[in-house]
Amino acid sequence: MSEQTVATTTYPIERLSEFTSRVFQACGVPRAEADVAAEILALGDLRGIDSHGIARLRSYHLMLSLGRINPTPKIEVVRERKSTATVDGDNGLGLVVGPQAYKIAMDKADEVGTGWIGVRNTNHYGIAGYYVLKALERNQIGWAMTNTSRVTSPLWGAERMLGTNPIAIAFPGLDEPPIVIDMATPAAAYGKIEMAMRRGEPIPEGWAIDSDGVPTTDPFKMAAGGSMLPLGSDRSRGGHKGYCLGAMIDLLVGPLTGANWGPFTPAFTIEHEEPARQVGKGLGHFFGAMQIDAFIDVDDFKRQIDDWIRTFRNTKPAANTNGPMIPGDPEREAEEVRRVSGIPLIQPVIDDLKYVAQETGVPFD
Amino acid sequence: MSEQTVATTTYPIERLSEFTSRVFQACGVPRAEADVAAEILALGDLRGIDSHGIARLRSYHLMLSLGRINPTPKIEVVRERKSTATVDGDNGLGLVVGPQAYKIAMDKADEVGTGWIGVRNTNHYGIAGYYVLKALERNQIGWAMTNTSRVTSPLWGAERMLGTNPIAIAFPGLDEPPIVIDMATPAAAYGKIEMAMRRGEPIPEGWAIDSDGVPTTDPFKMAAGGSMLPLGSDRSRGGHKGYCLGAMIDLLVGPLTGANWGPFTPAFTIEHEEPARQVGKGLGHFFGAMQIDAFIDVDDFKRQIDDWIRTFRNTKPAANTNGPMIPGDPEREAEEVRRVSGIPLIQPVIDDLKYVAQETGVPFD
Repeated sequence: MSEQTVATTTYPIERLSEFTSRVFQACGVPRAEADVAAEILALGDLRGIDSHGIARLRSYHLMLSLGRINPTPKIEVVRERKSTATVDGDNGLGLVVGPQAYKIAMDKADEVGTGWIGVRNTNHYGIAGYYVLKALERNQIGWAMTNTSRVTSPLWGAERMLGTNPIAIAFPGLDEPPIVIDMATPAAAYGKIEMAMRRGEPIPEGWAIDSDGVPTTDPFKMAAGGSMLPLGSDRSRGGHKGYCLGAMIDLLVGPLTGANWGPFTPAFTIEHEEPARQVGKGLGHFFGAMQIDAFIDVDDFKRQIDDWIRTFRNTKPAANTNGPMIPGDPEREAEEVRRVSGIPLIQPVIDDLKYVAQETGVPFD
Repeated sequence: MSEQTVATTTYPIERLSEFTSRVFQACGVPRAEADVAAEILALGDLRGIDSHGIARLRSYHLMLSLGRINPTPKIEVVRERKSTATVDGDNGLGLVVGPQAYKIAMDKADEVGTGWIGVRNTNHYGIAGYYVLKALERNQIGWAMTNTSRVTSPLWGAERMLGTNPIAIAFPGLDEPPIVIDMATPAAAYGKIEMAMRRGEPIPEGWAIDSDGVPTTDPFKMAAGGSMLPLGSDRSRGGHKGYCLGAMIDLLVGPLTGANWGPFTPAFTIEHEEPARQVGKGLGHFFGAMQIDAFIDVDDFKRQIDDWIRTFRNTKPAANTNGPMIPGDPEREAEEVRRVSGIPLIQPVIDDLKYVAQETGVPFD
């Protein structure tokens, strides 16, 4: 989400995207792949998911510089059936491995109705929404899931065992814009806890526990060995369901692909603590693509989606609200604004980019 | 969940199951299909999901008696690809249509790695867990979703637009029992609100809103035109994510199959209000089956699941808890007890069964 309360400088997306691609190329990533990686980070920034945009470039650069990520992976299908494949990403950028694996899912969906791809030995893949938006171009319903470094506790636990484990899925309309679900599975985003620390403010009840597993509204207690809570927060309000959802994603992207899982998911940055042991290879993704035409006439489907969207937009609004949104509304609205007016970056991110510019010799100003 | 605080009478599962099958047969359901339907309701009772067991028999009987459900459906595959099919259930019992459609999913998974089946023109299918447990017998990861009569509001809405929309998925272990996720998508179960009304007690904050969309702890205000809240409850704690999850399931089981969706999902009992219009045929299910062997060696996978289970059981417990459970623990423990000691039924359910016995001539005592 954009931080309206702190000073920002606005950059055109083309400029950020060009810079990003050149930085990846300076790290040894081939031009075509660097361009795709840059496109994914740019889409994060455009859609207002600032934590998954160019703000991560310094981390990617550092991991590549240290040889912790392979800039020229040999991406390989290690097992395959007509509707499935398992892909080994050879420790490449998730931004490179993800799109190539996802293409296999979409091709299989065209052939046999659906395609389901497990990916291991990969790294963070940017916003999950990127993949499912690609599927829409082929009249497919796309699915994307990944695990991430541990930060969330299972209900009744007192330590970090699961990541933020996002899931995305999208459904195309005919005259209406698509429904795009792209959500992490804890109760709140870690970025919001960081913001509360910066401001010295408490966090809402239900977001976090301290290192003893006791609910806390002190963001510093969460940061000091505490954990995020799963969606639902506590037993009474369904915290076990949020835990199940995070676990479901972890089990599909980890054990099923041969990647690491749970608390053993690799650290995203060198600042993160390295896991105690390895139970697989790298991070995992799980992708799906379903050809709509395999189930129902595409236009009939899209007309139903339009009807669904209009029906839900017409829900009687709760007191003091404008009524429900349709999943994907906030990101689409952000994209409409930012494509025209540019991406607002906060000073710490600009400083990071200037540092990367200096290190790589790619000019930023 | 079992109601430990009210008087119950305990019945052996075999006796309830035999009675259930004979009632379905008395309603015109063929013997083999009546037996499967009875098996699914019995599994609900065994696993402690009392709201989806024999307690529903009176409603099924009534709907069959009134001709609202077809006892002898011609279940038909109306569209098919190698990994997909769309099934029309001819308005049969979900307990009959579901298992037949699910078998197609499993057969396709054996052939091409995965099978994905959309089902329309069907009715309630019992516990979602039944289907995914079947997949385990074939070393498959099973998925099951359905929509249900409207009871949940989207975040910022003030009316019932979505059902309880459950999702189930299961993963087999080698020496450990399977991980079985089977969850509805609102913050809490409607049964718990009914229980609070019976006792004249308030409900926890975060479960429900009144008819103006204002959060309420008065169960009677929820019942009188209010709504359940989605998992996450409010914006701060991720209520938009629970809404997305319920919507995702609704979109897969409704528009993709040609079934009704959202507020137009048919009423489960004649007491429920009939929807304003029809946008498809009957209720919808969406099933998946993934052959583990299509992704990774089955034994390697099961060993990883065992490791996952042991790792998560060893999570440091939160203060004043016994630590996290593994999804499926409560249901498996209930089943172990109830297979031996029988199913506790409350008097209103026993009265319902006696009424059904009288109506059908199938003896109950």
